[in-house]
Amino acid sequence: MDLFSKVSRTAGKHSPLEEEVRKLPVPVSSVFLGKDGKIRPAAFRQTDMALVCKGHDRIRQVFPKTITKGGSAILEAVAASESESVAGKRVAVLFSGGPAAGGHNVLAGLAAVLGSNNTLLGIRKGPGGLVKGDIFEIEKESINSIINMGGFDFLGTDRTKIKTAEQFEKVKRTVVKNRLDGLVVVGGDDSNTNAAFIAEYLENEGIDCSVIGIPKTIDGDMAAGRYLPISFGFDTATKIYSELVGNLNQDAASAVKYYHVVKLMGRTASKITLEVALQTKPAVALISEEIAEKNMSLDSIVDHIARIITLRRFKGINHGVILVPEGLVEFIPEMGRLIAELNTVLAEYQKDITDLPSVEHKREFLLPRLTPQSAQLMASLPPDIQEMLILDRDDHGNVKVSQIETEKLLIEKIRYRLSEMKRHTDRFFGAGEGKIEASAEQVEDFKKVTLSTQSHFLGYEGRSSKPSRFDAAFTFQLGLAAGSLVLSGKTGYMAAITDFHKGGRVLALPLTGLVTAEMRHGKEEFVIEKSLVELSSPSFKIYAQNRDKWAIKDCFSSPGAMQYWGPTSRQVPMIVALDQDYPDFDSFDMGEEKQIIIE
Amino acid sequence: MDLFSKVSRTAGKHSPLEEEVRKLPVPVSSVFLGKDGKIRPAAFRQTDMALVCKGHDRIRQVFPKTITKGGSAILEAVAASESESVAGKRVAVLFSGGPAAGGHNVLAGLAAVLGSNNTLLGIRKGPGGLVKGDIFEIEKESINSIINMGGFDFLGTDRTKIKTAEQFEKVKRTVVKNRLDGLVVVGGDDSNTNAAFIAEYLENEGIDCSVIGIPKTIDGDMAAGRYLPISFGFDTATKIYSELVGNLNQDAASAVKYYHVVKLMGRTASKITLEVALQTKPAVALISEEIAEKNMSLDSIVDHIARIITLRRFKGINHGVILVPEGLVEFIPEMGRLIAELNTVLAEYQKDITDLPSVEHKREFLLPRLTPQSAQLMASLPPDIQEMLILDRDDHGNVKVSQIETEKLLIEKIRYRLSEMKRHTDRFFGAGEGKIEASAEQVEDFKKVTLSTQSHFLGYEGRSSKPSRFDAAFTFQLGLAAGSLVLSGKTGYMAAITDFHKGGRVLALPLTGLVTAEMRHGKEEFVIEKSLVELSSPSFKIYAQNRDKWAIKDCFSSPGAMQYWGPTSRQVPMIVALDQDYPDFDSFDMGEEKQIIIE
Repeated sequence: MDLFSKVSRTAGKHSPLEEEVRKLPVPVSSVFLGKDGKIRPAAFRQTDMALVCKGHDRIRQVFPKTITKGGSAILEAVAASESESVAGKRVAVLFSGGPAAGGHNVLAGLAAVLGSNNTLLGIRKGPGGLVKGDIFEIEKESINSIINMGGFDFLGTDRTKIKTAEQFEKVKRTVVKNRLDGLVVVGGDDSNTNAAFIAEYLENEGIDCSVIGIPKTIDGDMAAGRYLPISFGFDTATKIYSELVGNLNQDAASAVKYYHVVKLMGRTASKITLEVALQTKPAVALISEEIAEKNMSLDSIVDHIARIITLRRFKGINHGVILVPEGLVEFIPEMGRLIAELNTVLAEYQKDITDLPSVEHKREFLLPRLTPQSAQLMASLPPDIQEMLILDRDDHGNVKVSQIETEKLLIEKIRYRLSEMKRHTDRFFGAGEGKIEASAEQVEDFKKVTLSTQSHFLGYEGRSSKPSRFDAAFTFQLGLAAGSLVLSGKTGYMAAITDFHKGGRVLALPLTGLVTAEMRHGKEEFVIEKSLVELSSPSFKIYAQNRDKWAIKDCFSSPGAMQYWGPTSRQVPMIVALDQDYPDFDSFDMGEEKQIIIE
Repeated sequence: MDLFSKVSRTAGKHSPLEEEVRKLPVPVSSVFLGKDGKIRPAAFRQTDMALVCKGHDRIRQVFPKTITKGGSAILEAVAASESESVAGKRVAVLFSGGPAAGGHNVLAGLAAVLGSNNTLLGIRKGPGGLVKGDIFEIEKESINSIINMGGFDFLGTDRTKIKTAEQFEKVKRTVVKNRLDGLVVVGGDDSNTNAAFIAEYLENEGIDCSVIGIPKTIDGDMAAGRYLPISFGFDTATKIYSELVGNLNQDAASAVKYYHVVKLMGRTASKITLEVALQTKPAVALISEEIAEKNMSLDSIVDHIARIITLRRFKGINHGVILVPEGLVEFIPEMGRLIAELNTVLAEYQKDITDLPSVEHKREFLLPRLTPQSAQLMASLPPDIQEMLILDRDDHGNVKVSQIETEKLLIEKIRYRLSEMKRHTDRFFGAGEGKIEASAEQVEDFKKVTLSTQSHFLGYEGRSSKPSRFDAAFTFQLGLAAGSLVLSGKTGYMAAITDFHKGGRVLALPLTGLVTAEMRHGKEEFVIEKSLVELSSPSFKIYAQNRDKWAIKDCFSSPGAMQYWGPTSRQVPMIVALDQDYPDFDSFDMGEEKQIIIE
């Protein structure tokens, strides 16, 4: 074959890496292996571990059928007796929300465990496809082309929320029409809450269909402590972001002129930022949960960053990387209050504000209607941000918090603070609280600082990568677990794996034990609480203990591109290893490795 | 050791990958190996290949000394006789311009070949450091910590151009004061042109110091056909960009709603874009050289993209990736003319324009002073871009072409074009030149298209990565070659490697054969011409032949993270393999592998 042909033949997902990664073996826990070494469904036994959230009485009222049927106990997978065999079951699967690495291995796990005697169906484009009944039978062999491959493109995804009676009715129609014995929902906290409601609804309608959730989200916030250390996709996404942030660390130190300000995807939890910070040791990494818990103001955050920049400058370092979690703004208490007030005022005076001719007029109208604290904060923001807060509103008339360019807001504020520090050195340098100790020469040197910045947003690049070895293993087994749960007739559970360091322990968590009732805007909402960074966790503590030293000595690391072969290919996320008290983060063990070929 | 300590100990470039990659062996060509298998300097012999650029008579006048000494012949490295041994030489090295992966291995190669009998010195922060005399003796063992590591941070870099008599005088002072026998300049076309002048200047001053250039640039434009297929850094940068673009391809197909518009670093050549396009097969990749050669207008580029979006839509594909080379704007002939005219008018009427109060006034003043074609083009640009063209000028009063947000310009123009196509379907669909053939249903379906875009810029992430296995090998041998050239007393050469597929052939290219004289703005300038994408090259041809098919069938690939181990770790760039007529791109051979430890 000539080189022209060789290059042409890499098209359509046949690049050399894709071809080789498809062949990589995947570990399989012993509970899924028969005596012949082949994959077979596990059985489930009750454990003495129970999952109950606060307000469980209310949950009992809302999910009577599911709770009566399953109870609150966590189930554990065990090897099934060799005589048991289930056939003729029809199981459908859907992806919900943003892509995360490993989704296709969930399908592979399902296909492997259902075997040739049961049918696997795919639902196109997410929960919306479930409502519409957009469903097809998956030829199991076609799974061989997507094993260990990234993205959600085999099925597609969407963000439809199933809330109305009409939607539930349509879901029922899809289930009945397709004679589904099982429905597997791959998604985050919202989608798994939805799965809990669908399970209850179908039970209530007397329809025998197992509904099983699978914990997906790159943010890592769909987690449940020692039962489920992390959701899938987090490991891959943070490895990619760590590669890029590590490279920017190295670039900053090489070009010796820029601060790279990097916003990292993740609207709520700062777990991504914490993991990337532990991996790369940047100059600054802001952790939203810490900012909220310590009630830090925007000014005090800016102070913190300006102080680090100054201390680095004293060491001759005039460059670095600053990590900002995407959801930061809502975690700054005073910003949260400002946004809440703006939402109220914008709703109350909608017409007046619309009629006013210019942003300046609108601003003048708004400011007196805020509390003095919020008005002062608003006035201190860069003009672009103020304009955005006033003009850009979502369908509910609320401020589009996700659109706020946090990294640019911080850059402007830091720039302003540094110039203030240069003009009023006596106020900022010397002895005394909040001041920076510095010699006269250091202060003179500081006055010469210029701040050159580059801003970056890392997000989409990390969602659809081929899964890391860890995520490939994790998701394949989640698929095996979910398929086994359906074949065992369980409903209203989330498949989970834990003990990644010693063979992998396969659990089923009752969804009703994860859901809580919350009052939001005077309305009762049912949610699975997002798992956030805890300031008491080992992972946060080690970061907090080391960050100043790392920053001031510029102790960055550049952990490099994710590897599929070689000595570094089996790492687990540092935060998982730390918070689960594993002996190391450098290798996982989830069972015996098998090359997966679906026949 | 507990996990806290293990995590802490990854700080300061001790992540597991960094530790392991330091240990990776590097291939060494036989010309650098003694009978004992140890690294030693090569000798150089004349070949019958000569390097002569157009206008060489003028070059002869400008570089009389260098040309008299070395001639135009290309030298080839051969194993030196075992008796030869050089000691006591002092060789300094500097990095110039933006970082590129592998710079540190150049230092490792120099350290290895100079051995313990000669001295290696480092110049801090680039050519500026050479002028200032900011120089230090490198403890060779310290090189062990940077072998196979990314970035330029061991020395730092800058972009000083050495042009004035005073600067040359200072360079001489640095050379004399430090008793330098050699000066190795790691840089791109400008830096190597500078190296040629420094070589001539020192010869002319009667100072015996070898000046050797090393071809660095992620853009791949410092190249010389079969003598030097590519510069170092290109392979690593394009592997990283290909990983990310491949992931975005996969993400677009998964989330099924976005066109990701990705601007790729590289101000002149589109080689990066071409390589990434061959690796990933995106919906669209614009090649600046093609646009210039075909004299395409901005409108015709927008037409091309809108056509691809439409044809994909007909296949149900409403997402994808569009690659835009950073330097595109200057390659669009009409944009080039507009910018040239603006520069002239802005210079001529500087005072008038400054005095006018608003952008609107300035625009009104400018438009009548342009040619009608340029005025019309200017008026058709989005307001932001017009404002930028009028207001943002560099130190010479010229438009800051590099600041033009090309990706946003294209997005706005495409959006406008699509809405025009919806309003005037008869003009755009049907039979006839330039129209898109479509059924009535297809046209109706097209009207429902909404274009959601995300824009990205990939650049800094790719410059300071740890080098790919290829770049690690290439740069180590460039260091060996440069050191050998200095020890052989050669001056005014660029170290080069070719035949990456069969052992590596080590050459020395006379810098005076690369430099040409050009008239720019009525002034004679000496430059090394950038190596651009040639439309007649195999690499461009295979892309041009396949791109429509790849686009319309969405045949994307996702070549994944750069590997250091395993079956895909030895790839060479596809464009190199294609244009050099190698049998494959999947493995290089540059000699016998050696673990490098500098003692």
